[in-house]
Amino acid sequence: MITLYGTAGSPYVRKVQLVLALKGLSFEQVQQMPFTKDPEFKKISPLGKIPALQDGELIINDSAVICEYLEDAYPEHPVFPSDHVNKAKARWFENLGGHRVSELASGIFFQRFMRPMVMKQESDEVLVGKIINEQLPPLLDYLESQVPSEGFLFGALGVADISLVSSFINASYASYTVDASRWPLFSAFIQRVTSHAVVKPVMEAEAAMFGLNKG
Amino acid sequence: MITLYGTAGSPYVRKVQLVLALKGLSFEQVQQMPFTKDPEFKKISPLGKIPALQDGELIINDSAVICEYLEDAYPEHPVFPSDHVNKAKARWFENLGGHRVSELASGIFFQRFMRPMVMKQESDEVLVGKIINEQLPPLLDYLESQVPSEGFLFGALGVADISLVSSFINASYASYTVDASRWPLFSAFIQRVTSHAVVKPVMEAEAAMFGLNKG
Repeated sequence: MITLYGTAGSPYVRKVQLVLALKGLSFEQVQQMPFTKDPEFKKISPLGKIPALQDGELIINDSAVICEYLEDAYPEHPVFPSDHVNKAKARWFENLGGHRVSELASGIFFQRFMRPMVMKQESDEVLVGKIINEQLPPLLDYLESQVPSEGFLFGALGVADISLVSSFINASYASYTVDASRWPLFSAFIQRVTSHAVVKPVMEAEAAMFGLNKG
Repeated sequence: MITLYGTAGSPYVRKVQLVLALKGLSFEQVQQMPFTKDPEFKKISPLGKIPALQDGELIINDSAVICEYLEDAYPEHPVFPSDHVNKAKARWFENLGGHRVSELASGIFFQRFMRPMVMKQESDEVLVGKIINEQLPPLLDYLESQVPSEGFLFGALGVADISLVSSFINASYASYTVDASRWPLFSAFIQRVTSHAVVKPVMEAEAAMFGLNKG
């Protein structure tokens, strides 16, 4: 039995939820906020981070490590390409999505959604302006040069596509959308990923949780 | 032909150098500092980071992605365990070494070595004190609970061992050593890794570069 610890709405938890869904694996989800001081959760996640995953005796942390494990242990419905070269490229996109893309796109979400809505603080608009106007454009130029005009990066939807898009889903909750006139390919790519049959129900559940689908 | 872009002394470049050495792969190293504005290097490393690796037509970035590729493409002399469960654990340690351990231990190196020696700035000793006295101890407590009393994490020296130790090598250049009376197992583990026959020549070359073996 697989147990996923984490809360919906995290770009990293979402990545694992979608990989589990693509692989058709059933799992139990334990609601867990990150950075808890709970010593019981520290036994599961030494840094207090989410997601954590338990599969039998094995407990592992970090969404990239978890996705690699799921691919190794449950190879049916692969989420990585099978040849070394494309697998390396997919890992690079996975890594980019989980680090620089997340730092920027989830940064917008943190400032404009989490701080006002959850933490009752004001957004740091100087920081958000720097992200949107200075830091994201060169990254979006690069992404625009990498994504295909149709379909996904390596055939069927996989972890590379999901990782690159996941933090932009969070940014969209803070009303940031990638400018389709400036980055048409990447903007259309986000649309394709988020309207995929496996992604849609996860996003609808999140929208309900965040109260985004009300009237 | 394999080409490694990066400069000696980087904890991430060192990780790849050691994996290449463990696998007995010959390679050409191109000296490259990180975060250059050089547009030619941006074609190789979109974020300007090091290491980057070229193998034939493939160019990839990020030390974790590079080590996974080398393991897939050159499986002789493995640097990961072969079974899924231990491979997942090894990836977790690799990830921990490359992120939280590096953030803290390489943070000491950055403040106390790079800033005064290279950047002609003063070290932020408030930050260093916080790292050494508050942030590292719980991480070292965890590492102390994980490392073996003899040998390496998964048999022969591998990427998990190297990744956990690499940033502590940098911290040692800034005169920080893990307190052997408080964390005897992890301290002895660092000694075992750094005195391994494949690691020693790389460290000697670094010491010569940094002028640490004078007098």
